Amino acid sequence: MAPPDEITQHDHMHAWSSAINKPQTAQEDDAGASPTKTTSSGLQKTSSGLETTRQRLGLHPTAPIVEDHDVAPHQDLLWSRVRLTLREPFAEFWGTFILVLFGNASVAQVLLSQRLETAPGANGFGEYQSISWGWGLGVMLGVYVAGDSGAYLNPAITFSSCLYRGLPWRRFPLYFIAQMLGGFIAAGVLYANYVTAIDDFEGYGVRTVPPSPTATAGIFCTYPQTFLTKASQFFSEFIASTLLMFVIFALKDDSNNGVSKGGGNWFPLGLFFLIFGLGACFGYETGYAINMARDFGPRLMSYFLGYGSEVWSAGDYYFWVPIVAPFLGCAFGGFLYDVFIYTGKSPINTPWLGLKRVAKPNEAWKAHKEHERRIKEEGIV
Amino acid sequence: MAPPDEITQHDHMHAWSSAINKPQTAQEDDAGASPTKTTSSGLQKTSSGLETTRQRLGLHPTAPIVEDHDVAPHQDLLWSRVRLTLREPFAEFWGTFILVLFGNASVAQVLLSQRLETAPGANGFGEYQSISWGWGLGVMLGVYVAGDSGAYLNPAITFSSCLYRGLPWRRFPLYFIAQMLGGFIAAGVLYANYVTAIDDFEGYGVRTVPPSPTATAGIFCTYPQTFLTKASQFFSEFIASTLLMFVIFALKDDSNNGVSKGGGNWFPLGLFFLIFGLGACFGYETGYAINMARDFGPRLMSYFLGYGSEVWSAGDYYFWVPIVAPFLGCAFGGFLYDVFIYTGKSPINTPWLGLKRVAKPNEAWKAHKEHERRIKEEGIV
Amino acid sequence: MAPPDEITQHDHMHAWSSAINKPQTAQEDDAGASPTKTTSSGLQKTSSGLETTRQRLGLHPTAPIVEDHDVAPHQDLLWSRVRLTLREPFAEFWGTFILVLFGNASVAQVLLSQRLETAPGANGFGEYQSISWGWGLGVMLGVYVAGDSGAYLNPAITFSSCLYRGLPWRRFPLYFIAQMLGGFIAAGVLYANYVTAIDDFEGYGVRTVPPSPTATAGIFCTYPQTFLTKASQFFSEFIASTLLMFVIFALKDDSNNGVSKGGGNWFPLGLFFLIFGLGACFGYETGYAINMARDFGPRLMSYFLGYGSEVWSAGDYYFWVPIVAPFLGCAFGGFLYDVFIYTGKSPINTPWLGLKRVAKPNEAWKAHKEHERRIKEEGIV
Amino acid sequence: MAPPDEITQHDHMHAWSSAINKPQTAQEDDAGASPTKTTSSGLQKTSSGLETTRQRLGLHPTAPIVEDHDVAPHQDLLWSRVRLTLREPFAEFWGTFILVLFGNASVAQVLLSQRLETAPGANGFGEYQSISWGWGLGVMLGVYVAGDSGAYLNPAITFSSCLYRGLPWRRFPLYFIAQMLGGFIAAGVLYANYVTAIDDFEGYGVRTVPPSPTATAGIFCTYPQTFLTKASQFFSEFIASTLLMFVIFALKDDSNNGVSKGGGNWFPLGLFFLIFGLGACFGYETGYAINMARDFGPRLMSYFLGYGSEVWSAGDYYFWVPIVAPFLGCAFGGFLYDVFIYTGKSPINTPWLGLKRVAKPNEAWKAHKEHERRIKEEGIV
Repeated sequence: MAPPDEITQHDHMHAWSSAINKPQTAQEDDAGASPTKTTSSGLQKTSSGLETTRQRLGLHPTAPIVEDHDVAPHQDLLWSRVRLTLREPFAEFWGTFILVLFGNASVAQVLLSQRLETAPGANGFGEYQSISWGWGLGVMLGVYVAGDSGAYLNPAITFSSCLYRGLPWRRFPLYFIAQMLGGFIAAGVLYANYVTAIDDFEGYGVRTVPPSPTATAGIFCTYPQTFLTKASQFFSEFIASTLLMFVIFALKDDSNNGVSKGGGNWFPLGLFFLIFGLGACFGYETGYAINMARDFGPRLMSYFLGYGSEVWSAGDYYFWVPIVAPFLGCAFGGFLYDVFIYTGKSPINTPWLGLKRVAKPNEAWKAHKEHERRIKEEGIV
Repeated sequence: MAPPDEITQHDHMHAWSSAINKPQTAQEDDAGASPTKTTSSGLQKTSSGLETTRQRLGLHPTAPIVEDHDVAPHQDLLWSRVRLTLREPFAEFWGTFILVLFGNASVAQVLLSQRLETAPGANGFGEYQSISWGWGLGVMLGVYVAGDSGAYLNPAITFSSCLYRGLPWRRFPLYFIAQMLGGFIAAGVLYANYVTAIDDFEGYGVRTVPPSPTATAGIFCTYPQTFLTKASQFFSEFIASTLLMFVIFALKDDSNNGVSKGGGNWFPLGLFFLIFGLGACFGYETGYAINMARDFGPRLMSYFLGYGSEVWSAGDYYFWVPIVAPFLGCAFGGFLYDVFIYTGKSPINTPWLGLKRVAKPNEAWKAHKEHERRIKEEGIV
Repeated sequence: MAPPDEITQHDHMHAWSSAINKPQTAQEDDAGASPTKTTSSGLQKTSSGLETTRQRLGLHPTAPIVEDHDVAPHQDLLWSRVRLTLREPFAEFWGTFILVLFGNASVAQVLLSQRLETAPGANGFGEYQSISWGWGLGVMLGVYVAGDSGAYLNPAITFSSCLYRGLPWRRFPLYFIAQMLGGFIAAGVLYANYVTAIDDFEGYGVRTVPPSPTATAGIFCTYPQTFLTKASQFFSEFIASTLLMFVIFALKDDSNNGVSKGGGNWFPLGLFFLIFGLGACFGYETGYAINMARDFGPRLMSYFLGYGSEVWSAGDYYFWVPIVAPFLGCAFGGFLYDVFIYTGKSPINTPWLGLKRVAKPNEAWKAHKEHERRIKEEGIV
Repeated sequence: MAPPDEITQHDHMHAWSSAINKPQTAQEDDAGASPTKTTSSGLQKTSSGLETTRQRLGLHPTAPIVEDHDVAPHQDLLWSRVRLTLREPFAEFWGTFILVLFGNASVAQVLLSQRLETAPGANGFGEYQSISWGWGLGVMLGVYVAGDSGAYLNPAITFSSCLYRGLPWRRFPLYFIAQMLGGFIAAGVLYANYVTAIDDFEGYGVRTVPPSPTATAGIFCTYPQTFLTKASQFFSEFIASTLLMFVIFALKDDSNNGVSKGGGNWFPLGLFFLIFGLGACFGYETGYAINMARDFGPRLMSYFLGYGSEVWSAGDYYFWVPIVAPFLGCAFGGFLYDVFIYTGKSPINTPWLGLKRVAKPNEAWKAHKEHERRIKEEGIV
């Protein structure tokens, strides 16, 4: 059996990122003249304080930054050091912020202006399809903003990347916090922007939750159709999350003939079509949350903003479904891709499809301990 | 006369795939450092069992896989060998699955939520155009997923590729099965997702076929407008299939000045616009099936799910049209492209436009036998 | 004064095409390994019959074809020689055919299914925006098909290219015929496809022209809004044609910083957005014909199909506007681009903005004669 | 403290442009064979008159032009010299003209044809979403046209580029004038095109401003929803402008992993999605002006065209909001990007986040004077 660390403990974050920042020709690689992210060799090397702090936070000791920026004089300034320390969390925060702000705002505009006769066209400022656009381009632009962290923007995708692509688990907590905060704050900014329009729509200070006829809580987070059973609610989010991860793993798979050349530059556009598709094809029943940072964060914000405890109890306490289902769905989508298509390194491509760790935890624990020891001895992180 | 095997028996599958995975500069080619699919040289060479099995299935003895993955230790595992053996069928299955799942789901969402007042925008979760999006991006994402098999995703396109682009006929059966299964299973998953919404729309357990006013059978497969004659039904599918193949052959033609540079990376996006266009321009009369795997598979599933024998008899036994017309239309579209534009190897570019094989079958048969003999002697496959 | 032939007589067609088929790196150029169109060196050189015929038709003596296809054995076959002789006209024919077929079909689908309750979504198979999509992607796919001729697809654009970009005027007639035929035949095929649906919409055999309430003539060609004066009709087509040419010249300008790198591969997509925009922004008043091949060809076909002489008299004999305005508009759009932005070879970039030829025809005539003589002597074509 | 000139006085305009015209491989760079804009070495060097005039206008002494065009004989002609002198203003003018003409026209078409039954589809020539398309593709095509100046097309973006990216402040006035004129003239052309349709919609010669039920002033510039307070009006434009600048800085950031490779070619498409998104998500309340050249210019034109003084007084003298808010919003958006993500040269990446210049104006003034002196001595511009 291949030692588990070969697959899961290896820091794949840079490999993941490199799908975006991929050198396009062999020459570029040799010449080294392209602005590829490299392990920093300047300031960062000599500042063990920075390294230590980042390591404690679960991040790679050297921050991802273009080499010639790393040696820039200003990187010595206090704030530049803070930014270097929190580089990936900042990226995840702002990427998720952009994603949720555009997404929520598209729902707000369509909902609040529905049937408005004074709109050009005399039928509101948009329709359901605008919402597919809003979330699709929100994710796309979020990826452009958050390239330095790998642009997960979704705890379930971070989770799957830890599970199947060797992103170290110790990255998860900080990424998770940054994503959740991004969604939470974005919902607040969105509210500040549309508060007067919400007052105009619901009545001053009135804030209701579906199925109230003037409900505006759906601007922030998802509420299921009333005819759904809990199982249907769950399956709808599960299948959408499965598709999300399955196609993203394809779009990120440099060894897949369909994307290998186009992967890097084409990824954000491919992602736009994927998210647009999930909205146009799987948005009816439960609103395709497929992302805890996009649903729970804004839901919490809407609770604080006065939408009442119905934000939790609506849809027979639906709120936990878009928390749990994305994790399970993304895990399953990644599983399917790796089982049927992926030929690279993955726990699936170990004996017993990687389930030995589950079936024989003792052996796996030993291998883990051995790995920990080696990290300390050899200074690998 | 050029021997027919020069054109039709040559295994063009890799050439086809290479339109996607095309090296962009001459240098790359020389350096060989790009992740081009190459005939595997590691494990596969030494495992004659794998080769034999693949050959028996009609596949090329060596599976398409990035070289450095091919020599990875895990490729020795049982499941990795299964995956290597069934690499192209798996790719076609999942590509078609993605295509049909998104496509069918877009119809389901628009149909089941039509005029819904509680939707944001107060007019349902989408409109007809969402369906153009759904099928367009379904095909696009399907191609990204199924790059390793050439991403035909449609028996009629596989058929035309055998006819004009030298894809060996023995590949056809397994590709066909994989595509049909992909569409069939996708329709089942789609039903599982939308069953509650269908119950809500039609009534619990009620399942009807157009022109019933609450019919939901149109979610799965196509039903023609009632005013159409059989000839009109047929022509509508025929012309759409002709356009499909004609434009795809253009998009795949590296020697066409309009696409030669952009072919690889741009193909999936070009395909999106093509499918979107067929939906927006030729979707009214018969629903642009243009693909047996997209129509017959889901139709069979809907029959099993209880939509009754009307799925076959509706539209004066329309069901055979989207089986037959795509094959004939794609064959005709390929014929037109090769007659008027294509300058590369094609049976059209042989004496008598390749019709000698039809007109003088004896000669063609002899040439075929000679080719078979040479394959055995020289080990060409 | 620079001799006029320096600018206008030089055969720029290959330069124009090369914007599509541009080598992306200097290396490619040197290595010569990229599938660049080159002046054919094989069969064509030795077949003076082919050359002579092409020259008589106004085409460049050697057909644009990838070099290694040119020496393929089959290029010796009768039909291959026909195809080589008529290479550019075939490309223009099929490109315009694709453009008009998709475009007309998008109007047909939206018009004939308007308000249809049995459509998924219960409101027809599309809306006005589908038509923007249809024409936009029709042009885009037409360019992909017609790359070998330069993909003008519009007599007014061919005209402007002769005027400003040195496309020889003797190319114009054959290109014009091919484009007109493409539009004409496409309208016929479109009618064959939608004839039953037209019967269903208008009544069997009834064919009317706007402003008849059930008019279907608008499927084929454009009819202006009734409130427009002749001047408004003309200006609407003129300004749209000006924008068309102005932006196309920008998209084709390799020396413009905004597109120089992306020109080739990005051109068809940029064109999609341009045509979509003309439809969404300038389609209301006169239907943005901006192309005689798209308007006159189908109009003639609709006349033959029985729509009556109103196809000519409607809109106060509007039919001549989309013939004349595109030529003038495109000429003006090209003029503006060259005056204000273009720094390359153009008659605008000669003394008196090239108007000397108009102001002093004698001098220009002498220069032209001198040029003709040199062509004969030096064998330049 | 790093001298301020290191950051703000350095002429970054070419760096900005180079994001569009970026060499894609190191080789290209070395070979120098790509059509990169280079400092002109031909005519411009020897014509000190040209240089002096450009310098007086606040432009870089040598105009951005492809080197082999620069030495073309015709660059010696009078008009070519005028064009060379006013190269960037011409580019900004035409880019903004294209942007505003498409954008305003999309509003005109949707508004004037609303609910029109004779439209194909029987519901007007477009809907609100067409307007998102119109502005999105207007900006995209404007960037393609205006590549030679950097394609700012918006005074607030020029302003932010001076503030954070070292575009010299002396560029601002001429760019500003060109952008304002572009928007102003475009609105006039738009009116000429739609004047008959406006007469048809409002009544001959009637011109009203929202909230009049037949108001057409909204074609030209933005009017806020009536329920908004001044603070809400302002915040809506502010947040949209912040997002605009934040995402553009990301799309232009070659050191951001998410875009570094795709930056150049992909920028116009990314911008399309960004502007589309602002329209679909933040267009309801105040119409997402986010650009003084797009709002004030057309507003002034509509005043001259007879819409009355209400164009100024409407919305409680709203007109100043889309002048002021974009400058503040873009400044804030740039600030956020540089504080949290940007690692390159920026005043933010100087001590005290660059606020020393504000806090200690004397020191900054001295540094500025020192810089001025060095410019004169060393001939840097």
